[in-house]
Amino acid sequence: MADPPKIEIFPNAHPGRDYLIEHQARDFTSVCPKTGQPDFGRVSIRYVADASCIELKSLKLYLQSFRDRGIFYEDVTNVMLDDLVAACRPRWMMVETRWSVRGGISSVIAAEHGRRPG
Amino acid sequence: MADPPKIEIFPNAHPGRDYLIEHQARDFTSVCPKTGQPDFGRVSIRYVADASCIELKSLKLYLQSFRDRGIFYEDVTNVMLDDLVAACRPRWMMVETRWSVRGGISSVIAAEHGRRPG
Amino acid sequence: MADPPKIEIFPNAHPGRDYLIEHQARDFTSVCPKTGQPDFGRVSIRYVADASCIELKSLKLYLQSFRDRGIFYEDVTNVMLDDLVAACRPRWMMVETRWSVRGGISSVIAAEHGRRPG
Amino acid sequence: MADPPKIEIFPNAHPGRDYLIEHQARDFTSVCPKTGQPDFGRVSIRYVADASCIELKSLKLYLQSFRDRGIFYEDVTNVMLDDLVAACRPRWMMVETRWSVRGGISSVIAAEHGRRPG
Amino acid sequence: MADPPKIEIFPNAHPGRDYLIEHQARDFTSVCPKTGQPDFGRVSIRYVADASCIELKSLKLYLQSFRDRGIFYEDVTNVMLDDLVAACRPRWMMVETRWSVRGGISSVIAAEHGRRPG
Amino acid sequence: MADPPKIEIFPNAHPGRDYLIEHQARDFTSVCPKTGQPDFGRVSIRYVADASCIELKSLKLYLQSFRDRGIFYEDVTNVMLDDLVAACRPRWMMVETRWSVRGGISSVIAAEHGRRPG
Amino acid sequence: MADPPKIEIFPNAHPGRDYLIEHQARDFTSVCPKTGQPDFGRVSIRYVADASCIELKSLKLYLQSFRDRGIFYEDVTNVMLDDLVAACRPRWMMVETRWSVRGGISSVIAAEHGRRPG
Amino acid sequence: MADPPKIEIFPNAHPGRDYLIEHQARDFTSVCPKTGQPDFGRVSIRYVADASCIELKSLKLYLQSFRDRGIFYEDVTNVMLDDLVAACRPRWMMVETRWSVRGGISSVIAAEHGRRPG
Amino acid sequence: MADPPKIEIFPNAHPGRDYLIEHQARDFTSVCPKTGQPDFGRVSIRYVADASCIELKSLKLYLQSFRDRGIFYEDVTNVMLDDLVAACRPRWMMVETRWSVRGGISSVIAAEHGRRPG
Amino acid sequence: MADPPKIEIFPNAHPGRDYLIEHQARDFTSVCPKTGQPDFGRVSIRYVADASCIELKSLKLYLQSFRDRGIFYEDVTNVMLDDLVAACRPRWMMVETRWSVRGGISSVIAAEHGRRPG
Repeated sequence: MADPPKIEIFPNAHPGRDYLIEHQARDFTSVCPKTGQPDFGRVSIRYVADASCIELKSLKLYLQSFRDRGIFYEDVTNVMLDDLVAACRPRWMMVETRWSVRGGISSVIAAEHGRRPG
Repeated sequence: MADPPKIEIFPNAHPGRDYLIEHQARDFTSVCPKTGQPDFGRVSIRYVADASCIELKSLKLYLQSFRDRGIFYEDVTNVMLDDLVAACRPRWMMVETRWSVRGGISSVIAAEHGRRPG
Repeated sequence: MADPPKIEIFPNAHPGRDYLIEHQARDFTSVCPKTGQPDFGRVSIRYVADASCIELKSLKLYLQSFRDRGIFYEDVTNVMLDDLVAACRPRWMMVETRWSVRGGISSVIAAEHGRRPG
Repeated sequence: MADPPKIEIFPNAHPGRDYLIEHQARDFTSVCPKTGQPDFGRVSIRYVADASCIELKSLKLYLQSFRDRGIFYEDVTNVMLDDLVAACRPRWMMVETRWSVRGGISSVIAAEHGRRPG
Repeated sequence: MADPPKIEIFPNAHPGRDYLIEHQARDFTSVCPKTGQPDFGRVSIRYVADASCIELKSLKLYLQSFRDRGIFYEDVTNVMLDDLVAACRPRWMMVETRWSVRGGISSVIAAEHGRRPG
Repeated sequence: MADPPKIEIFPNAHPGRDYLIEHQARDFTSVCPKTGQPDFGRVSIRYVADASCIELKSLKLYLQSFRDRGIFYEDVTNVMLDDLVAACRPRWMMVETRWSVRGGISSVIAAEHGRRPG
Repeated sequence: MADPPKIEIFPNAHPGRDYLIEHQARDFTSVCPKTGQPDFGRVSIRYVADASCIELKSLKLYLQSFRDRGIFYEDVTNVMLDDLVAACRPRWMMVETRWSVRGGISSVIAAEHGRRPG
Repeated sequence: MADPPKIEIFPNAHPGRDYLIEHQARDFTSVCPKTGQPDFGRVSIRYVADASCIELKSLKLYLQSFRDRGIFYEDVTNVMLDDLVAACRPRWMMVETRWSVRGGISSVIAAEHGRRPG
Repeated sequence: MADPPKIEIFPNAHPGRDYLIEHQARDFTSVCPKTGQPDFGRVSIRYVADASCIELKSLKLYLQSFRDRGIFYEDVTNVMLDDLVAACRPRWMMVETRWSVRGGISSVIAAEHGRRPG
Repeated sequence: MADPPKIEIFPNAHPGRDYLIEHQARDFTSVCPKTGQPDFGRVSIRYVADASCIELKSLKLYLQSFRDRGIFYEDVTNVMLDDLVAACRPRWMMVETRWSVRGGISSVIAAEHGRRPG
């Protein structure tokens, strides 16, 4: 698999304050590695920036890079958290994925990095 | 009664992190042991995995195995929690069932195993 | 398969007026004849009575008789319409079934008997 | 059974115009004549007045008079329509009752008097 | 009672076309002439202009002029329609008022002037 | 006033675990002792069972026994809590009643017994 | 300005228990002291009674007494809290007002008296 | 005022069929010519194409060109309809604008060109 | 591009009756041919069958075949209608696609084949 | 860039009490400094006043001053918090901005000043 696109960052202009940033993508898709069927979900990324913020356009491209990846729900969530933490080194971050019904069951996975300030 | 289908597990690929997994089944049915009437409800399973995660297809079959069982609301919830805990040994788990109106009363039962990390 | 339970009727006390009766069952289940998997849906029955009205308790039992039947969406709807028309001979009737997601697709089937008065 | 309270009327101040009046009561209750169990529903009354309008306080008392009556859904609706038509002689009237779930089935009954102007 | 404030108009810049204009006021209040209690409702005014359109600020003041008037639901609606028609001479107009619960009953009154073009 | 119907109980099959049981009745009615007018509301009962659980059919009949009782909102809630606690001796219980608008005001009353475990 | 109507109280029949009482009025109106324009909002009053409870009819009249008062959002909320505390001496009370859009901005003001028990 | 950006078109690949196209912009803003205050609304454009369809990016820029224009609700709607009709010559078109509350009143304006096929 | 998967059909068991069949897919994705960006939408297919009905599993695979196709909104809708009509020869069919926001604009395209019976 | 309009204040008439004030503006717009495209969002300002409250009309004008400013989401939120804190010196304040979808992603930014009393 090709490398996923680089997540760009820009300097946090307000590092003296712990404030919350949330980005939500309503239309996310990847592929079930077991059945080859497409999975559809929503992704929510919440974080408290330290020195760097995530640039939105590169985030969009990063999320699109999962379109053809065969990957489990649990892995999408943890891999995304790891990649985003590596890119912007936040004080705190949470990634939550909410998945459409498959076999009569819908799922939510939520993983957290660090302890939320305040 | 025949044995319920086995709940399959797969290894948790991210055991170093306490993260939340939730599976929701909107269409669940069992039978009232007193009246023989069908009961309908929704089931929500939330857990923090330790070494193992619950495999979704076997979970679907397990939930379907209640279709012909005569069993009270309170028992469905506790039995399901016991079975799932036995299968995947989670760090924490909660099973919540929400039941359609019967005799003008709708019900919710929620049982928890262990103490939620973090 | 055993005969489905008889749909009971009672005399329409207001036959001089065309008025609308609707019964909705939010929790309906049958079985997919192809996969053996349970199907879940909602059933709505609307009619204008002629000499007879449908008795509710027998309707409940009739709807429950589909629980173990392997039958397609389209057939459930048309068979139900035929059975109910045969039982109460309405001036007009419509049966609509709305089905939960299966394979990423949810379905609605609606069949009508006669022409709605007025 | 005692006579139901009289439905009071007052003169329609705008008889030259066909205009719509609707009154909705969200909390209505009567008794199932078969089981003795309470029934709960909502009542909507829509009409185009001719010489007279329905007075609201007497309507409230009239609706309350069903509280202890054993009467079927279909009858409540038609009886109410007959009583209201007799009281205010409207150009057109419709009574719609929407009933809470009983035995897993909720119901709607709608009866109309005359042909709606315009 | 003092005269209600004048409803101002401005020329319809597009008289060659029948197009729909709707103004909705969510917070309207008048006084029940029988009990002296305040009534609360929403007002919706829909019209097709001929030569003139209704100016919004004067409409607001006109609606506020009902605040201390003792007037029935049916009269508010018809009087408002008459006043607005007199002011702007529309090709078609409808006034609809929706009233909060009083004595357990909520009400809607809708009156129309002319026949809607098209 | 006749004695209210007895609230039946059955043994808690899972006394080793503190789990939550909730029963909701959407259609509840009693009588205002001051005005004689009917009151309408919803009742929610949440508890953690000790040795006994509340049987649903007897709960339905118990709730219906308020239909003709003249009793204030605050009293309904506290009396119900006292009766239910006496019947099933829970580890914790909360009764919440939510009342329809009367005189432009809707109300909620919530009373609790014991301290919720865990 | 005339004195506002007296807020009546009645004895709390269950003083041994800290329980929550909430009254909500969806239709409240006062006047902006700066512009003379009407303000519209909703009022929510939550409290834990000590020896006395608030009588609902007098509460309705008290709320109506703001109809012609020129008073800011912040003052309505605090004055109401002071008046209600003075009348019924609760263990805890909160008054929350939610105001309709004015100049593109909607507002919420919430003031609390005492510390909520338990 | 500078010319508004040109609305680009592309050939309708299915001219043999009358089919419906709808574009909705939830975030639209212009300026009130009377007060200089910003207006906010939503725009819905529905049409049946003849030889040409509207290109989406140029539509976005066209809608943005109203950001600094002082223009009444009624004019926005009719001007937009005229501009779009001139650009793509549809078989039928409707423009509907829904405006946020101003002075307690929200508005909807809807203008149509041609007669909808079928 | 490879051929799209074949849409399977099965015989309509109730050809003597015009009844409505609707299939909705909430998660649909294709690719914008201009920008290469993914498009996301919902697809609704409604039809009245003649001799044949559409088989659901093949419909799912057919819808998935758009995942990598660069194709405009208008074309997706018309191509889908053409393919489905060719496969099952319905008495009437409508395909409606509803697309997520792109450039601040969301879109709906609806195309119809034949005239709906009845 | 010209100075933003001054945020006016007025004395807090109830400084002895920590109470919550919230102002919400549903229609807010600024400009993306990178693309020049308009951004749309909602702004919520919550605070506990000390000696001064924020005057609403000046707040409206202050919010409008962002209309032509090229400024990132994160900056809008922090700059607004700084400006408002400087103007009214609250005991606590939070500014939350919720932004419409751009590139398939919607965002929320929330910044806080001081520690909320109580």
